[in-house]
Amino acid sequence: MFTRIDHVGIACRDLEDRIDFYRSTFGFVVASREIHEDQGVREAMLRVPAAGPGGGADAAGGGAEAAGGGAVPVPASYIQLLEPLHPDTPVGRFLARRGEGLHHVGYGVADIENALAEIGATGVRLLDERPRHGSMGASIAFLHPADVGGVLTELVEAPATRE
Amino acid sequence: MFTRIDHVGIACRDLEDRIDFYRSTFGFVVASREIHEDQGVREAMLRVPAAGPGGGADAAGGGAEAAGGGAVPVPASYIQLLEPLHPDTPVGRFLARRGEGLHHVGYGVADIENALAEIGATGVRLLDERPRHGSMGASIAFLHPADVGGVLTELVEAPATRE
Repeated sequence: MFTRIDHVGIACRDLEDRIDFYRSTFGFVVASREIHEDQGVREAMLRVPAAGPGGGADAAGGGAEAAGGGAVPVPASYIQLLEPLHPDTPVGRFLARRGEGLHHVGYGVADIENALAEIGATGVRLLDERPRHGSMGASIAFLHPADVGGVLTELVEAPATRE
Repeated sequence: MFTRIDHVGIACRDLEDRIDFYRSTFGFVVASREIHEDQGVREAMLRVPAAGPGGGADAAGGGAEAAGGGAVPVPASYIQLLEPLHPDTPVGRFLARRGEGLHHVGYGVADIENALAEIGATGVRLLDERPRHGSMGASIAFLHPADVGGVLTELVEAPATRE
C-alpha cells in the first residue's frame, strides 16, 4: 500500500529564511513554491539532492540521474516547509502551541483511494474522506494524528510525471 | 552531501503497541530491534515496503526488488520507533514535555565525517562531534535542533550492505 517516505513537513515562522538555511547549509533544492489558501499555508518543497554516481554507497538513493540506463526513475525525498498565512490556521496554531519544528510525515502511496479505504476500515479516522489537491500536483489526504500515535500522517499519490 | 530521507524518528510510550499498529494498519515490516543504553532507548526500525512492479507510478520508490536487472539497489525508507528506557532520558523528557509523536528526521549521507565538517563550518552546533554507532550498523550524528529551525536532525551513513 505504502511505497516510501515522500516528504517530511516542517513548520516555520519565516519561509524565506528557512529556505535559505536548507539551501545554503544542506544543499537542498527548491522544487516548488505554492500558496494553499484552503490550508492557510505558504509552502515550499525542497528536494534532497541525490549524491552523484561517485557519491558512495547511498548514490542510488536519490534522483533519476543516478538510476542509470533504462531503469525506472527513483522518486526523490522532499522536505516541505510550511509558513502559516495567518495565526488562526492549523500551522499557525501549531507554531503557537509547539514552536517551529517537525509537523507531519507524508508517505507515498500507489493508489490513494484504495489506501484511504483500507486504513479507514481499520478504524483510523480520516481527516480527508476524499483526496484533495496537494503540492506539485499530488493527490493527498491526512489521517487523524490521535489515531496514529500523535503523528499527523499524510498520504501522497504523486503524479506519474513527478520525479 | 545528503542523499535522501533515511528515516523519521517517532517517540512512543509502548514500543510493542506501536509496532503492532504500524504492522497491522500500514503494513510496515520490522527490520531490527535494538536497545541503545547510551541513548536510553529501546527502538525498532520499520521498513516502508515498496509496492511491487505492478504497484503503480511509485513502484520504483522502494526496495531492491523493484530496481530490476543490474540496477543498484534502492535504499528503503524507515520509521524508527523510540521508547525510553527511563523517564530521565532524552526521549523520556520529550514524551513528558510534548507527548507521543515525531521526534527527529534522519538524512542519509554518503560520508558522515565530511558532512559533519561541512555543516559544523557553517556554525550549526553538532551534538556529536564524531560519528557514533546507530541502528542497523549505521554511523550517526545529531545536529542541534535550535540551529535547524527546531528540528532534531540526524545524519546517517548506512553500511554499504544495508538495503
